[in-house]
Amino acid sequence: MKAEILTIGDELLRGEIIDSNKSHLSERLLSLDIESHWHSSVRDEPEDMIDAFRRAADRADVVLVSGGLGPTRDDLTSEVLARSFGRELVLDESALETIRAFFRSVGREMTENNATQAYFPDGSEILANPIGTAPGFVLEIEGTPIFCMPGVPRELYRMMDEQVLPRLSARMEKGGEVVRARLLRTFGMGESTLDAELVDIAAGGGVTLGFRTSFPDNYLRPVARGATARDAEAKLDRVCAAIRERLGDLVYGEGEETLEAVTGRLLVEQGRTVAVAESCTGGLLAEKITDVPGSSAYFLGGVVAYANEAKTALLDVPEAMLAEHGAVSDPVARAMAEGVRVRFGASIGVSTTGISGPDGGTEEKPVGLVHVGIASDEGTHADAFVFPLDRARHRALTAQIGIDWIRRRLLGVALEGPTLLRRRGGASTPGAPTQGGGERA
Amino acid sequence: MKAEILTIGDELLRGEIIDSNKSHLSERLLSLDIESHWHSSVRDEPEDMIDAFRRAADRADVVLVSGGLGPTRDDLTSEVLARSFGRELVLDESALETIRAFFRSVGREMTENNATQAYFPDGSEILANPIGTAPGFVLEIEGTPIFCMPGVPRELYRMMDEQVLPRLSARMEKGGEVVRARLLRTFGMGESTLDAELVDIAAGGGVTLGFRTSFPDNYLRPVARGATARDAEAKLDRVCAAIRERLGDLVYGEGEETLEAVTGRLLVEQGRTVAVAESCTGGLLAEKITDVPGSSAYFLGGVVAYANEAKTALLDVPEAMLAEHGAVSDPVARAMAEGVRVRFGASIGVSTTGISGPDGGTEEKPVGLVHVGIASDEGTHADAFVFPLDRARHRALTAQIGIDWIRRRLLGVALEGPTLLRRRGGASTPGAPTQGGGERA
Repeated sequence: MKAEILTIGDELLRGEIIDSNKSHLSERLLSLDIESHWHSSVRDEPEDMIDAFRRAADRADVVLVSGGLGPTRDDLTSEVLARSFGRELVLDESALETIRAFFRSVGREMTENNATQAYFPDGSEILANPIGTAPGFVLEIEGTPIFCMPGVPRELYRMMDEQVLPRLSARMEKGGEVVRARLLRTFGMGESTLDAELVDIAAGGGVTLGFRTSFPDNYLRPVARGATARDAEAKLDRVCAAIRERLGDLVYGEGEETLEAVTGRLLVEQGRTVAVAESCTGGLLAEKITDVPGSSAYFLGGVVAYANEAKTALLDVPEAMLAEHGAVSDPVARAMAEGVRVRFGASIGVSTTGISGPDGGTEEKPVGLVHVGIASDEGTHADAFVFPLDRARHRALTAQIGIDWIRRRLLGVALEGPTLLRRRGGASTPGAPTQGGGERA
Repeated sequence: MKAEILTIGDELLRGEIIDSNKSHLSERLLSLDIESHWHSSVRDEPEDMIDAFRRAADRADVVLVSGGLGPTRDDLTSEVLARSFGRELVLDESALETIRAFFRSVGREMTENNATQAYFPDGSEILANPIGTAPGFVLEIEGTPIFCMPGVPRELYRMMDEQVLPRLSARMEKGGEVVRARLLRTFGMGESTLDAELVDIAAGGGVTLGFRTSFPDNYLRPVARGATARDAEAKLDRVCAAIRERLGDLVYGEGEETLEAVTGRLLVEQGRTVAVAESCTGGLLAEKITDVPGSSAYFLGGVVAYANEAKTALLDVPEAMLAEHGAVSDPVARAMAEGVRVRFGASIGVSTTGISGPDGGTEEKPVGLVHVGIASDEGTHADAFVFPLDRARHRALTAQIGIDWIRRRLLGVALEGPTLLRRRGGASTPGAPTQGGGERA
């Protein structure tokens, strides 16, 4: 099945926003092993839209359209799609009532222009939008379903998962084959190493294993085919179990669950708390942890100690230690983790101190060097790494290690650093994965 | 002039990376008032590429291609473009030498596959790539220039500005008209309000004024036409002066300069330092400030005080005050700013305390309420706002206010909050601008 994804809106063509919807939809389609062959975007111009709709219906087996479903003058998708294929635009009373009900539920009066959102090309099937005013719809043109969804990411994502994917899956099952997929999230091993580690698992058995990099994580996407859903799910169970057996705690979660969310859940389950002491990550570690709603249940706080005086005054790092070893050192990383743990009265203290660059490196302590520390009842540990990355990715990777070390402490497993990058003084492996291959020339 | 932007790469169509190159290129084209009518992406498949190249050359006046210039097997742009228009692929000796020199300069041996990057369709003009191995090129097909550039963002951006835009500008000048543009960055006023404020300035005089939202900022993009570059620049000078006169300190910078970079420069110039006390922003304020290379010159550090005990122990907020007013209050915001300023011995202390949600709100203190505080020799100030935004944007907007207040203190101007959102107890204006219109249905 060849898919085309078509997004509509002047703001896209003016470059006012980065269109992340296309990549999200392509990724979700791949969960059914449907490959996107074309990504297209056009302005809110009827001629351009008609041309794009007809071409897409002509060359693709399935078309996903995002945008242009709103109530304003420049939301033309329904009207223009109808015109493109000679369909009437018809009012759907139940959709209109749903829109009215939505406005009632948020205590607002429905303005008349919102009624336009209840008109669809004749023959369309309506796709529910439980969190927005614009319903979606699917229109089939000569065997090619054209799914039209809102451009609002959260509405689009939900409609894709709840309305579109099940329908596509059903269509494929008619073809006598069921496709099911899962996403395993890993941190700490490079894509090529993962590939080599899992080569035998990936082979055959009606399961294909896909890889995806979302720096600094790597995701595994097993896709299983079977005669029935049960059959496909059973294959996925087998493969996922084999992968987890092979990779152990490198797999931190499944599906949409982020590392900070997984770690937060463990903290709640064990009734433990965290405080962080940051130098080179400059607040990013705390920011990631508190990005999780409800994190106040286990995150007590943190100290960003850029200046040495701050490390001494707020984290009780001895001046003598800073003088002897320098701020970027294992002893200081340990002292920072212990200091912040005591200051906040937390179960676990985590620290980062390093040189994210672009300047500040020396022969002995190069740009990219970072020390990460952790302190808890289990004891205090620190390790050093050299990450040859730009400032932003150096900080992101370091913060991720800090969170992963909390997770590893809570699981009682070894405090591994990422093998995808050079460990200070350790074996040298090729550099960091580029962001999802995004840095390919 | 109608432009098409075509990006090439399997990783795009698999949704492995979000394609930000298209929006960047469209935005840069608009600086010459060239509108993108089509965005397209295809896989590294010759048939798909040929089809896309021919269609683009046929319907657009200028085509920008990104990706597929690398040395690997799946980098096919030059070869397939040549085939699409019946051109030979020819070796450019000087380009080959340049590639060799690049490898020498980084102390590496050029592998043979890199030589493929020195072959171009017959009749192409080569575009220099000073920071990468893959040169770009432009091939003209029946009056339509097709510019081919690398997919690596930093190489692409530089080649676009240094090689492509000047050539396009020159082509347009042949048309007897010069187009020049600037970008003014503002924070604190909504797009529609800006539009109304500047309506008379925007009108006529050979200058058009564009607006762009990059939450929480709003950018102004005056585009001037003239008989000569000097003429166009003079018009821009007049308009930009008028805008700055009208908006005053709402304009914080020009071009690529971020608010945190502008504020950092002011801190260095005035030899002053900063420390931050964060509750609801959870480290984001510190993270943004330290995102600027060299920020260690003026950023001493910060405290993320999620727990009340931390506010007392590390920021010296009186327990009685927390008990009487609650953590989310003006007195506590002031005490946090003063406390962190003293603890770090900084010239300026900034604080945030609020309810970013989704939970934790009450009748009296709703989700979205936030208090921002600042303390310096000029005195201590705090103010409260209610931002009806999701957690991520509530945190982003609050952090931006914190940085903007540092800038305003350094400039000696009023500590304005954003008028684009409801001030607590103040007049109610429509809600926040959605991210660059990205949340349009």
